[in-house]
Amino acid sequence: MPQFNDTELTAAVIKSFEETPDPRVKFLLEELVKSLHDYVRKTDLTFDEWGYAIDFLTRVGQKCTPTRQEFILLSDVFGVSMLVDAVNHREREGATETTVLGPFYVGEHKPVPHGTDISSNLPGERMFVQSRVTDLKGKPLAGVPVDVWHADDDGYYDSQRPTYETDGPSSRARFITDADGRFFFRTILPCSYPIPTDGPVGEMILQTRRHPMRPAHVHFLVDAPGHEPLITHVFIDGDKYLDTDVVFGVKDDLVAKVEKRSDPVTPDGKPVAGPWHLMSYEFRMKPGQGNAPKPMMAVTEDA
Amino acid sequence: MPQFNDTELTAAVIKSFEETPDPRVKFLLEELVKSLHDYVRKTDLTFDEWGYAIDFLTRVGQKCTPTRQEFILLSDVFGVSMLVDAVNHREREGATETTVLGPFYVGEHKPVPHGTDISSNLPGERMFVQSRVTDLKGKPLAGVPVDVWHADDDGYYDSQRPTYETDGPSSRARFITDADGRFFFRTILPCSYPIPTDGPVGEMILQTRRHPMRPAHVHFLVDAPGHEPLITHVFIDGDKYLDTDVVFGVKDDLVAKVEKRSDPVTPDGKPVAGPWHLMSYEFRMKPGQGNAPKPMMAVTEDA
Repeated sequence: MPQFNDTELTAAVIKSFEETPDPRVKFLLEELVKSLHDYVRKTDLTFDEWGYAIDFLTRVGQKCTPTRQEFILLSDVFGVSMLVDAVNHREREGATETTVLGPFYVGEHKPVPHGTDISSNLPGERMFVQSRVTDLKGKPLAGVPVDVWHADDDGYYDSQRPTYETDGPSSRARFITDADGRFFFRTILPCSYPIPTDGPVGEMILQTRRHPMRPAHVHFLVDAPGHEPLITHVFIDGDKYLDTDVVFGVKDDLVAKVEKRSDPVTPDGKPVAGPWHLMSYEFRMKPGQGNAPKPMMAVTEDA
Repeated sequence: MPQFNDTELTAAVIKSFEETPDPRVKFLLEELVKSLHDYVRKTDLTFDEWGYAIDFLTRVGQKCTPTRQEFILLSDVFGVSMLVDAVNHREREGATETTVLGPFYVGEHKPVPHGTDISSNLPGERMFVQSRVTDLKGKPLAGVPVDVWHADDDGYYDSQRPTYETDGPSSRARFITDADGRFFFRTILPCSYPIPTDGPVGEMILQTRRHPMRPAHVHFLVDAPGHEPLITHVFIDGDKYLDTDVVFGVKDDLVAKVEKRSDPVTPDGKPVAGPWHLMSYEFRMKPGQGNAPKPMMAVTEDA
């Protein structure tokens, strides 16, 4: 006869998964059960606390829409997304560090010419970005697609705007590296911005007195043949939120000095009016395989 | 400068919660971060597995409605609900064991007279239930409200029926114990039944080759003044799912022998036609305080 009390229960739950056909799924479920049970035992979780957790998770799920993924946001602010990234990229061997994809990647675009101003004339301080893609020995990699996206001067991505479908992309583009592995473009200087705080995750951030800010950054997705796809950000040195990024995405290697310039021409020889910023960064690719990620959109609703 | 890699990340996330005003909330969040991070490190969770988890949890949240709570069901099948019950009821001192409330408690009803047939003439084998509520020394407790609810012969609760609002309760009632602490009623023999399998939790149960069944039982909620409210089930001895209850709710102490009888009268002296079953069970209440639970309904949708 069973006795599902606090000492025998865990073994019974683990045993319930013993017929799971896939050994990896079985392992993941067994470890999940141990982890959940250890947590409840260690904290002596009360009924009210358990009820709060049930309600919180339900609200997180119900906040998700085809254009918003509140569970990824939850994973992000608990540092889980970055840790998954970390355990899957333990040995970099000198390659550029990785960081989270984030919820604002929308997939590939048609490549645009080097030097394009991708900001669609949005207001903001002007920035010229020059970059190069190489292998671990510094050999340039030519013909490599590089996707770029960043927030605007108000802290929003184009895909967060209600007019996104009609206006098309802005501060978002694809380049193909030239024979020297180079690509370059014009845009505006991104600024630090808060994650959405109008849902349950934002509620937790505010209730625990954390700030909701991410330091200013530009996203890059570099997908060179024969190399691991590189998903990363380049952060702007001096940002006040570098040490306390709400999603823990910062690594030393990814912080770029952005110079304030007043030269009348940008590095591509074109004239420029007024002061501008220069971001220079090189990407070192790790040999390997892998598929570039697809955008992580929320499921369609099924309530 | 920060370095949110796989060894330093956990400390950084824990530190982010250091200003949390409530020390208990702070402790629960710190332990949650440790637990989640240990899990990711121990399993070397892949991006695909993480993505599956995000999608699964989103679907669980989106399956919840005002009459369905899929996150409680998830907690149940992982044995977490029973463990929360267990750590909150470690020392029973001879009192009746507790088990999960379940999702089908709908709150109080107007008391009905002893002997009432609560089954609303549903088809099924007839059962007479006789019971008594006492303190730990066996002294009867009079005037105690006892809520009773159980599934019908098809394995459904009245509240799962689309006609529930118009037809009113069935196999569900409140009794008040008499001067001897007794209460008794007529109903049908409940049967074992599956948890709902049309959602993501059911999907997991089937994919892992677990069965979705709960052994036959009657729910009781006994709320005696000066005693801890007792939330429990009485299970029917001989049920084939006692050892493998999908929500791990069974304890030895809660299994009752249900006798098959053919006497022409039930214990209250009333005539009965054909064979019937007799369930006898006594509840021993633990001194203490506490509020009887409210029904655990899903949040309203907020998508």
